[in-house]
Amino acid sequence: MKSDLDRYMEESGLDALLVMGPAGHNPAMTYFTGLIHLTQAFLIKKRGRPPVLFHGSMEREEAARTGLETRSLAAYPWPDLLKEAGGDAAQAQALRLQRMLQDCEVSGRVAVYGRVEVGPAYGVLERLRDLAPDLTLVGEVDQAVVTRARATKDEAEVARIRSVGERTVAVVAKVAEFLTSRPVKDGVLQDGDGPLTVGAVKRRINLWLTEAGLDNPEGTIFALGHDAGVPHSAGQEADPVRVGVPIVFDIFPCEAGGGYYFDFTRTWCLGEAPAEVEKVYRDVRQVFEAVRQSLSAGGPCRDYQNMACDHFEALGHPTLRSDPATERGYVHSLGHGLGLAIHERPFFSHLENNHDRLEPGTVFTFEPGLYYPDEDLGVRLEDTLWVTPQGEIETLVDYPFDLVLPMPG
Amino acid sequence: MKSDLDRYMEESGLDALLVMGPAGHNPAMTYFTGLIHLTQAFLIKKRGRPPVLFHGSMEREEAARTGLETRSLAAYPWPDLLKEAGGDAAQAQALRLQRMLQDCEVSGRVAVYGRVEVGPAYGVLERLRDLAPDLTLVGEVDQAVVTRARATKDEAEVARIRSVGERTVAVVAKVAEFLTSRPVKDGVLQDGDGPLTVGAVKRRINLWLTEAGLDNPEGTIFALGHDAGVPHSAGQEADPVRVGVPIVFDIFPCEAGGGYYFDFTRTWCLGEAPAEVEKVYRDVRQVFEAVRQSLSAGGPCRDYQNMACDHFEALGHPTLRSDPATERGYVHSLGHGLGLAIHERPFFSHLENNHDRLEPGTVFTFEPGLYYPDEDLGVRLEDTLWVTPQGEIETLVDYPFDLVLPMPG
Repeated sequence: MKSDLDRYMEESGLDALLVMGPAGHNPAMTYFTGLIHLTQAFLIKKRGRPPVLFHGSMEREEAARTGLETRSLAAYPWPDLLKEAGGDAAQAQALRLQRMLQDCEVSGRVAVYGRVEVGPAYGVLERLRDLAPDLTLVGEVDQAVVTRARATKDEAEVARIRSVGERTVAVVAKVAEFLTSRPVKDGVLQDGDGPLTVGAVKRRINLWLTEAGLDNPEGTIFALGHDAGVPHSAGQEADPVRVGVPIVFDIFPCEAGGGYYFDFTRTWCLGEAPAEVEKVYRDVRQVFEAVRQSLSAGGPCRDYQNMACDHFEALGHPTLRSDPATERGYVHSLGHGLGLAIHERPFFSHLENNHDRLEPGTVFTFEPGLYYPDEDLGVRLEDTLWVTPQGEIETLVDYPFDLVLPMPG
Repeated sequence: MKSDLDRYMEESGLDALLVMGPAGHNPAMTYFTGLIHLTQAFLIKKRGRPPVLFHGSMEREEAARTGLETRSLAAYPWPDLLKEAGGDAAQAQALRLQRMLQDCEVSGRVAVYGRVEVGPAYGVLERLRDLAPDLTLVGEVDQAVVTRARATKDEAEVARIRSVGERTVAVVAKVAEFLTSRPVKDGVLQDGDGPLTVGAVKRRINLWLTEAGLDNPEGTIFALGHDAGVPHSAGQEADPVRVGVPIVFDIFPCEAGGGYYFDFTRTWCLGEAPAEVEKVYRDVRQVFEAVRQSLSAGGPCRDYQNMACDHFEALGHPTLRSDPATERGYVHSLGHGLGLAIHERPFFSHLENNHDRLEPGTVFTFEPGLYYPDEDLGVRLEDTLWVTPQGEIETLVDYPFDLVLPMPG
């Protein structure tokens, strides 16, 4: 949680954080600013002090709404900086960062954050490094302090994620209702005068998400048959929606403007399910329930991945652990943390360097699946779970697990 | 254009490009891959050779749809890399990049690209630099070759931007129709049982954009009165929409999934316009027309910014040139390039280090404005223009310039 940040900074020997980029679709910045319209900003947090937000003059009133201490970049006049830098814009930007850090009384080890264009950032940071020998710029990879802090959520964050989740499953229910009310011709659902396509379903999903105040920046996975067998195949726009074919429906919208995400998957067969799909579905469901029961606060994430592999292997399925190159069977990890980014800590890799745990406050997806692309089938089931402060494992939003959605008539 | 890339790389002494990150909402990657569902990928382009796309195993079929040469990251087994790196994930990532570059026969100067988390990227690139003395990693700031290439568009790109534009102004027309058909009570537009708020207008805008197949990742500026006087104030959700108050309506959606943008602004007064708003509006319109007439293919962008400043100053308005700290008058530049990013080259700064020109193929916004926040007023007018291959300056999508939208009754 945010309140852990100073402690984590101390543990990592960091004197300050420097966050760059816009306030939306930029988790590290949004974490501090909230969702406002800042197209380009800098935030400096010295250890033990509240953060300071540097903003463009045209965005001064948006910046003020964050409630943070704010300073205008106009205090560092660009024409002067550019002159001092001999016309080199990268050098001028590095000079400005140096002054801003000085004005926050920062020296020592500074970790950099922000989802930005890496080229200009790298160029400017290299110049800053050369310019300011009192600074050590740190690109944290594994134990990034803001990422660590973000991994556990406070109650207000959980309430927002739950609200996104409630709106998301309401859309899922609408999709189910829409699909099951379509007429069927030669095994294909109909939409007006022709076949219902995956693209048409996705357009409706986008509309319903928008009505619910949600953004869908990464699109939706609505993948049929063979595509269902390849975990990240999003489904092909022109594909007609058919009965009796497994559909992996994975939906992961966020608050409008780029805030908290939710992530949810069900696998459906419309009308009826072939026996081989039912068999694979039963196996996924069984492993889902078995591992779900075993989850407990403080537990190491890699143990649960190993447990899922144990179960799947015992049922005769290949896993990434039994064959790291497999494209059949259980080919991904059990889940991932979820918050301002769709994939964040904790992670569930079974490898030994994974020390992530289900600390109280963790919000994470739980999503075992099986994939047999050569048999045109894939099954994934995903809920978003929360480790409560009391150490319970709570499903944030419940939704039925039915494989078969009956078609009338 | 993309066809200029090898030449630009040669001019900048670059041997290769390394692009990182997802395929959506990541201009440098989308430029090569098109809009597909790749959550994490790498692209290496050696000078004189077509690019190679490295993708996760779960995304192999999405990757194949790009038509690019593809290679799976499964060829660089992660457990082995991690072992070799002694469990250090950053070092393992650097090793993997080194191998990928070697497999593309790359050495020498490599420019890095991609909108990604700068912290991990910086950490991994630093390790790669230490690991591979045959490589020089370059963070281009000013003359980035991909940014230079993207600044001029081919006809297919222009067609896509124009299509986004046509859908955008259709939504603008719907908003005008919606506003002017509202009942008015005590100067406030009504929506059902209560006042129409800025938030309610924006929710309808999002819905109509979604219906048109567009995303709105950065939100909309719909700013009334005082907020209209601060260029990037987005407008406040709870504000009631009033007659006789200037509204700056700036809308900048992109293709669903994170593709090409459009950018468009009108300033409206509902029912009637106060004399001081009309006066400022006339000045903006006059400068708009005067500078618009002067634009010509090959012209230096900074000259047009200076020209706009000349005109505004002659009309008695302060400008950023006459007073770099002003928050009144003409406080921004004349426009910016537009494409896969909402702000890209060319830029229109009046400063001497700006050498950008209106090359044929350039798509750019043209948006003079005046701002008087202390008088609760601001006016901006923005079209998106294209320098055709024949050197004409074409408005991509036309829309009326009326300030006053008459309210019935």
